[in-house]
Amino acid sequence: MELQNIANTLHRVRQVNPLVHNITNVVVTNFTANGLLALGASPVMAYAPEEVADMASIAGALVLNIGTLHEKEIAAMLLAGKSANQHQVPVIFDPVGAGATAYRTATARKIVKEVNVSIVRGNAGEVANVVGENWSVRGVDTGDVQGDVVSLAQSAARQLGTVVVVTGKEDVITDGQRTYLVHNGDALLTKVTGSGCLLSSVIGAFAAVEQDLLLAAASALVSYGVAAEIASASKGQAGPGSFQVAFLDQLAKVSTDQIIKYGSVIEKI
Amino acid sequence: MELQNIANTLHRVRQVNPLVHNITNVVVTNFTANGLLALGASPVMAYAPEEVADMASIAGALVLNIGTLHEKEIAAMLLAGKSANQHQVPVIFDPVGAGATAYRTATARKIVKEVNVSIVRGNAGEVANVVGENWSVRGVDTGDVQGDVVSLAQSAARQLGTVVVVTGKEDVITDGQRTYLVHNGDALLTKVTGSGCLLSSVIGAFAAVEQDLLLAAASALVSYGVAAEIASASKGQAGPGSFQVAFLDQLAKVSTDQIIKYGSVIEKI
Amino acid sequence: MELQNIANTLHRVRQVNPLVHNITNVVVTNFTANGLLALGASPVMAYAPEEVADMASIAGALVLNIGTLHEKEIAAMLLAGKSANQHQVPVIFDPVGAGATAYRTATARKIVKEVNVSIVRGNAGEVANVVGENWSVRGVDTGDVQGDVVSLAQSAARQLGTVVVVTGKEDVITDGQRTYLVHNGDALLTKVTGSGCLLSSVIGAFAAVEQDLLLAAASALVSYGVAAEIASASKGQAGPGSFQVAFLDQLAKVSTDQIIKYGSVIEKI
Repeated sequence: MELQNIANTLHRVRQVNPLVHNITNVVVTNFTANGLLALGASPVMAYAPEEVADMASIAGALVLNIGTLHEKEIAAMLLAGKSANQHQVPVIFDPVGAGATAYRTATARKIVKEVNVSIVRGNAGEVANVVGENWSVRGVDTGDVQGDVVSLAQSAARQLGTVVVVTGKEDVITDGQRTYLVHNGDALLTKVTGSGCLLSSVIGAFAAVEQDLLLAAASALVSYGVAAEIASASKGQAGPGSFQVAFLDQLAKVSTDQIIKYGSVIEKI
Repeated sequence: MELQNIANTLHRVRQVNPLVHNITNVVVTNFTANGLLALGASPVMAYAPEEVADMASIAGALVLNIGTLHEKEIAAMLLAGKSANQHQVPVIFDPVGAGATAYRTATARKIVKEVNVSIVRGNAGEVANVVGENWSVRGVDTGDVQGDVVSLAQSAARQLGTVVVVTGKEDVITDGQRTYLVHNGDALLTKVTGSGCLLSSVIGAFAAVEQDLLLAAASALVSYGVAAEIASASKGQAGPGSFQVAFLDQLAKVSTDQIIKYGSVIEKI
Repeated sequence: MELQNIANTLHRVRQVNPLVHNITNVVVTNFTANGLLALGASPVMAYAPEEVADMASIAGALVLNIGTLHEKEIAAMLLAGKSANQHQVPVIFDPVGAGATAYRTATARKIVKEVNVSIVRGNAGEVANVVGENWSVRGVDTGDVQGDVVSLAQSAARQLGTVVVVTGKEDVITDGQRTYLVHNGDALLTKVTGSGCLLSSVIGAFAAVEQDLLLAAASALVSYGVAAEIASASKGQAGPGSFQVAFLDQLAKVSTDQIIKYGSVIEKI
């Protein structure tokens, strides 16, 4: 995967200004909207069952995030997801907290069963729980199980029939056949709530302009990660509040030249 | 309209510290509250049908915003609006996304029909959809239709019996008889989610202290716009994250002298 | 109470990284999560009745906040609270706006009646309304009634059988027997929405690692207040937007040495 292609995809997001419909959690709505605006996309949040099918049908991508799920929102997600499917709108799914409670795990599985999802993004524990593997989330957090994460992602992608993105110290992108590893990003992202949720929505913005979903996902992760690296280098020492502000600035400013200079994506053979 | 009167109205907001009751969308609650606090007003958010009538009755203004509407919230808006009407509390209505889905359009029309609204604020497409005009929102966004926006605002104000504020590159304020144009603000506001929603709530803060609603609305738009201009001049180059922080700072700091120096409002004859 | 013990408790929060389950209002979710992350705790928000008992059972503390209460959320709070009680998880209650509407007052009383709360934190008017005293909130805001606030806090603590924290210009912490006064913090906190709500969640993080609830509460207030003082000294002049960013930075950076140098807590005899 050429960094020039990734840079071109970022350029296209900014040109097209795709409408991204988010049904997401109450913690991250503001940060998600500001992050998408900074990047050059156009965010919309809509939750009412009376309108989600309409909104999803005119969007460039639909992002479903179960971070603060409840019954009515799940019903709205299913309505929106099916409308997106009918209108060939790519659906990105973020199974926040799958495995933390039985309700989240069951809901995540219901969504991937009833909606034709294009890309699933989560950490290793969340993705493992969506596909029913017996994973210790604590073990994953140590980062000692690199080989296993790649296998997990590939297995999940084949089982779900989607692209799967597993983020962590190293990010894995796979459709079950081809697999890419991305080494961009910064540890300070873990100190900003919703940095994973916003990433899922950013993947949606890229999927809205690029049909090759592996390229779309890799372009999102590289652009996001390089912006975080630049923000951390300039403001990270000040602390997580300053970093978050600088990160929003960099989502707007990160250049195609910087993508080519700092981007790191390799194919896993 | 004298800039000195506008400066005086801003001064009064800071003296009175009016309580502004917001029933608004989940994306902008935090930014709205922080913006009102910075300005010198006192925000409260309350949504439960059991309490909205009580809360609206003790507020200086009520702001209704349908950005992430749902059935129960609409019912609460109607209860709060009717209570505000009974207690002579001015009601500001922001028809976010009217025209984007049939549900939003229908809800916006229901609210202006059932509640005695004082001021409606939206972009041209939203306002057009509230009053049932056949407007192409895309056309409005080009900004090529200046004359039409003034006519739309005036026509909407007469039809609704309210003050109408249409914001865009140029802002129009009218009660259907007198019309004012405001040329303050900065393009970076479009990169901060909820900048229109917060403006509606800021109009509420001014309407709480000034019964001349044209003066109240113009004072809000000039104060908001000048604060944005100063913030953009100092931090705009850094990006939208830094601009948002500087804008909150300037809502607190913008002085009556700066209002008189930089404010731009003219009557449209 | 030794400042060294307070510094040690802060150190322990950062070591343990306790999971704090928040059922809080829609205005402050993002700021609460970012503040807890900055401090070194691990926030989770979960509201669905299907999962709150599970989530509360695995948390280090549960924080209930009625800032934007509604029927379903109250039911979820009771479920979560009872689960926390069963699993010896401390419960912190923030009765936002008790006294402002009859519904809030009644709900606050219901929660302290049905859930075994460990710590109640509010301003003087809110706490007075929880225990049914006939307090003029306006009088409290003048700060002229210092002696009364201590008596109110002590009386409330005895009546409720909890630790009570009343925050204001001076903060009072009491279990009805021992009483401490904390003189840290900065007036700019009143210009940041949710600064009281975040403080309640921060108290939760400290209660998760320290069973002496008076020490836990005092450690939270001193750490929070010293971070605010340092942030105000460095960025306060710029305005409330810059202060909020600097405050998040300082929650992450405030050192045990700074706690010992700037902390101010005395026992009220």
